[in-house]
Amino acid sequence: MRGLMQDWPLVVHKIIDHAALYHKGAKIVSRSVEGSLHRTGYEEIRVRARKLSAALARRGVKRGDRVATLAWNTWRHLECWYGIAGMGAVYHTLNPRLFPDQIAWIVNDGGAKVLMFDACFAPLVEQIAPKLRHVECYIVLSAAGDLPKMKLPKKPIAYEAAIAAAREREWDRFDENQACGLCYTSGTTGNPKGVLYSHRSNVLHALITAVGPAVLARPSDVMLPVVPMFHANAWGAPFMMPMTGTSLVLPGPRLDPPSIYALMESEGVTLAAGVPTVWLGLLRYLEENGLKLTTLKKVLIGGAAAPLAMIETFEDRYGIEVIHSWGMTEMSPVGTMCVPKPPLDTLPPAERHALQMKQGTPVFGVEMKITDDSGRERPRDGASVGRLKIRGPAIVKAYFKGAGKSAFDKEGWFDTGDVASIDAHGYMTITDRSKDVIKSGGEWISSVLIETLAMGHPSVAEAAVIGVAHPRWNERPLLIVARKPGCGCGAAELLDFLSGKIAKWWRPDAVVFVDEIPHSATGKILKTELRRRFADFRLPA
Amino acid sequence: MRGLMQDWPLVVHKIIDHAALYHKGAKIVSRSVEGSLHRTGYEEIRVRARKLSAALARRGVKRGDRVATLAWNTWRHLECWYGIAGMGAVYHTLNPRLFPDQIAWIVNDGGAKVLMFDACFAPLVEQIAPKLRHVECYIVLSAAGDLPKMKLPKKPIAYEAAIAAAREREWDRFDENQACGLCYTSGTTGNPKGVLYSHRSNVLHALITAVGPAVLARPSDVMLPVVPMFHANAWGAPFMMPMTGTSLVLPGPRLDPPSIYALMESEGVTLAAGVPTVWLGLLRYLEENGLKLTTLKKVLIGGAAAPLAMIETFEDRYGIEVIHSWGMTEMSPVGTMCVPKPPLDTLPPAERHALQMKQGTPVFGVEMKITDDSGRERPRDGASVGRLKIRGPAIVKAYFKGAGKSAFDKEGWFDTGDVASIDAHGYMTITDRSKDVIKSGGEWISSVLIETLAMGHPSVAEAAVIGVAHPRWNERPLLIVARKPGCGCGAAELLDFLSGKIAKWWRPDAVVFVDEIPHSATGKILKTELRRRFADFRLPA
Repeated sequence: MRGLMQDWPLVVHKIIDHAALYHKGAKIVSRSVEGSLHRTGYEEIRVRARKLSAALARRGVKRGDRVATLAWNTWRHLECWYGIAGMGAVYHTLNPRLFPDQIAWIVNDGGAKVLMFDACFAPLVEQIAPKLRHVECYIVLSAAGDLPKMKLPKKPIAYEAAIAAAREREWDRFDENQACGLCYTSGTTGNPKGVLYSHRSNVLHALITAVGPAVLARPSDVMLPVVPMFHANAWGAPFMMPMTGTSLVLPGPRLDPPSIYALMESEGVTLAAGVPTVWLGLLRYLEENGLKLTTLKKVLIGGAAAPLAMIETFEDRYGIEVIHSWGMTEMSPVGTMCVPKPPLDTLPPAERHALQMKQGTPVFGVEMKITDDSGRERPRDGASVGRLKIRGPAIVKAYFKGAGKSAFDKEGWFDTGDVASIDAHGYMTITDRSKDVIKSGGEWISSVLIETLAMGHPSVAEAAVIGVAHPRWNERPLLIVARKPGCGCGAAELLDFLSGKIAKWWRPDAVVFVDEIPHSATGKILKTELRRRFADFRLPA
Repeated sequence: MRGLMQDWPLVVHKIIDHAALYHKGAKIVSRSVEGSLHRTGYEEIRVRARKLSAALARRGVKRGDRVATLAWNTWRHLECWYGIAGMGAVYHTLNPRLFPDQIAWIVNDGGAKVLMFDACFAPLVEQIAPKLRHVECYIVLSAAGDLPKMKLPKKPIAYEAAIAAAREREWDRFDENQACGLCYTSGTTGNPKGVLYSHRSNVLHALITAVGPAVLARPSDVMLPVVPMFHANAWGAPFMMPMTGTSLVLPGPRLDPPSIYALMESEGVTLAAGVPTVWLGLLRYLEENGLKLTTLKKVLIGGAAAPLAMIETFEDRYGIEVIHSWGMTEMSPVGTMCVPKPPLDTLPPAERHALQMKQGTPVFGVEMKITDDSGRERPRDGASVGRLKIRGPAIVKAYFKGAGKSAFDKEGWFDTGDVASIDAHGYMTITDRSKDVIKSGGEWISSVLIETLAMGHPSVAEAAVIGVAHPRWNERPLLIVARKPGCGCGAAELLDFLSGKIAKWWRPDAVVFVDEIPHSATGKILKTELRRRFADFRLPA
């Protein structure tokens, strides 16, 4: 027996329709690529998105076609998403921080017919254009007068001119499982893999993340997503904020601490989201200049583990609540948020902060379990670690074109590639990437935990831990350290610093000092490179 | 092109699964039918719900079968919903306040095989049992020792005995459009009509109402749904609260002001939901006894319009935020909530309260429009009124067995039967039921607005306005008033009281005084009865 409720598809343009009618008071302030501040609202964004649909349709874009965007967070980029998705096409976000060849590869793999980009990326687009196999149309996100001089296979069009010449197009009608967005994950090995979001998954992701466990977005809030829209959907902000009526402040290309600080203060930002690197820079800037954040109430930290010192500084010195979060491009991307819930909501500060180091509990609609290598579930006791597997309506069931099949099992679980523990209250802690975990005598040692602890030493700029071959234990940990300029601490001092903080058998067998830790284009530590470099490292007996 | 995200069905047992794993700290406190307080948590509720599934399966209940419940809000009733729905059967809630013949008619129309009921309803069940055509099994929501002596076609089973004898049954697997719950609307005319909720609509309703615009439920909140589970899903609390990790306080059969007050204070209730009558009683009780509410922060008022005095008293005297809400059984049931959003969030108190008299803006997932009798949309200007039509994923597309077809149009809009205006910010105000609106010379006069204003007069206990035939204007309003004991105000005084508050041509042509205004079993004013009684009323020339 089927229920008798309406077949109202979960499509993303219903979000902007709702915002245009009921969230007219919300403000969208953007730092434009040209430098000035631009102000608009959801009603105008909707009108212009529908004009963009018309402009794209006129240029031959059809349902299911991919339209690539290479752009910072601005109102125009937001309009692109709704205009593209609302006609049944697929927005394909590109990360400008990747190497040009990687970007070209990703555009070709995705098959975009149109490339829309900020004027500041003109040199990059000129460089990759000859390699793009499917792109027939180039649109610069600028006014007609600001069109940069470029050599392209086809004359580029100015976004504002295309919009001005168009009349609003009705949203297309389709099923909620229609593809909506495409985003590639930048793995540290192999080719990037495409995640193809549906309208349903994007709408459900906005709902499940807005519901909790943190109160993230309300009509009285002003949110600044420092995290870019090309980085895992800007953690869902482009959908969650219009749905909830939250005002948006979009930083455009300026992500440096003074610019972020100035925007926060001038626009009354109450909530901000970004990776630890961004907050590290901002906190340093505040301290060096004796500044305070007068309106910010909450900060969402994800993309990498939030260090304890950062949590303490935000909460204790500035009175700003930290919500530590974890997710992946493959999960739209939010998986967990760390909010102390009863009975843990009354912990004293030190214990509260220790809890906040965990990645947190999943939002409704994310199922989690940890398993051993053979797939048997491991206990939720806070001590046992295992491969972290997830299931839910906003989680991939396959990569674009069938890449990376080994991550999916028959029961629908996706293997995150992370190793984690889950405690009795359901708080999850990432302890490692499964390919980085060190397997010593049948037990697992977390490289990430040792790295995080080592980075707490005042002389350490950055630390990495890898496993190196050991005749008896199979693998043992090697600690690789880049010291801060002028700091000269030795191996013994560092190992002493770790002792008492980790189990004895986790203690690295050796420490080596390097000038710099190698990183991927997206800032992840390149452990493959380190393992190659230290493949022949001989541990002391 | 279809997205590549997981097929994770939106089924309600995923809610209790999530709560059992991640909201272990939430408390469920119930006033039992026996009188004592009972304490449990979501984890235990899930275990017992799964045992109930097993017990029902053993007794022949299959997927799609209806299982009726006649019960107050308690932990057992909550277990029933999850246990029934999680095996693919359909919980069918019965309103014990209806006349016994109506209840029997509804059970038969729904076709329930099993009837589960609180021991206090034993006399009622005895009375209707001989008329029930499909019920094969009677389960009393009590311990084995508390089984009342009853004469029934089959020997009743004690719920606790059935649970104790069962082992947890795995949730069934089915599509999200599977029927989940059945609830009949009690119209003032015709037979009640069944609304058949799906798993999808119940899960989406929990999400869209939790998202906003009011922050209703968080892990740190303790919610008291005074509104019964047999009344439009208790406004969604049984799904929204476990999803968000909110603690629940369930009042059982004691809905009198002293009991409600005592529960609120002893259990630290922060949020409560109920109809105006309940709050009127509670506010009077507080005043008469010089009491304060020390933990309550928000009160959700729906089911009928919240009077201005109630909003003022809650907010100004007690510092409790009022969220005026509107919904219908047909919409699962929440449609709108009145929360002052920017730029209306900074209004001074008097204007804020005037805004709060409106029913508010829709949650995401509820589309609204107002039309004239021919279906043309009317302007959203706050002045134009029209038939209120709605669309969304938690709104009926048809009644059970095809009743009431005229309420649905080809584009999927459901005619609420209400007449309303929508202002420029999207705030909707119910001005009348469409069958009660008074059509005077081609214009519509709101009977409800005049009633609400008249009830603001200190001598008026209750007021009703109906249209009576008029040779020139077709219809004109007649004000019918029941005075408070000992109050003797006259017609002229009342009409003077209204003047300046309504348009001149809305002024009732006459006032009549009655001892009592007639009501339906669910407390609605019986205008059909008033129209019959005053059919021959002659208006003064």
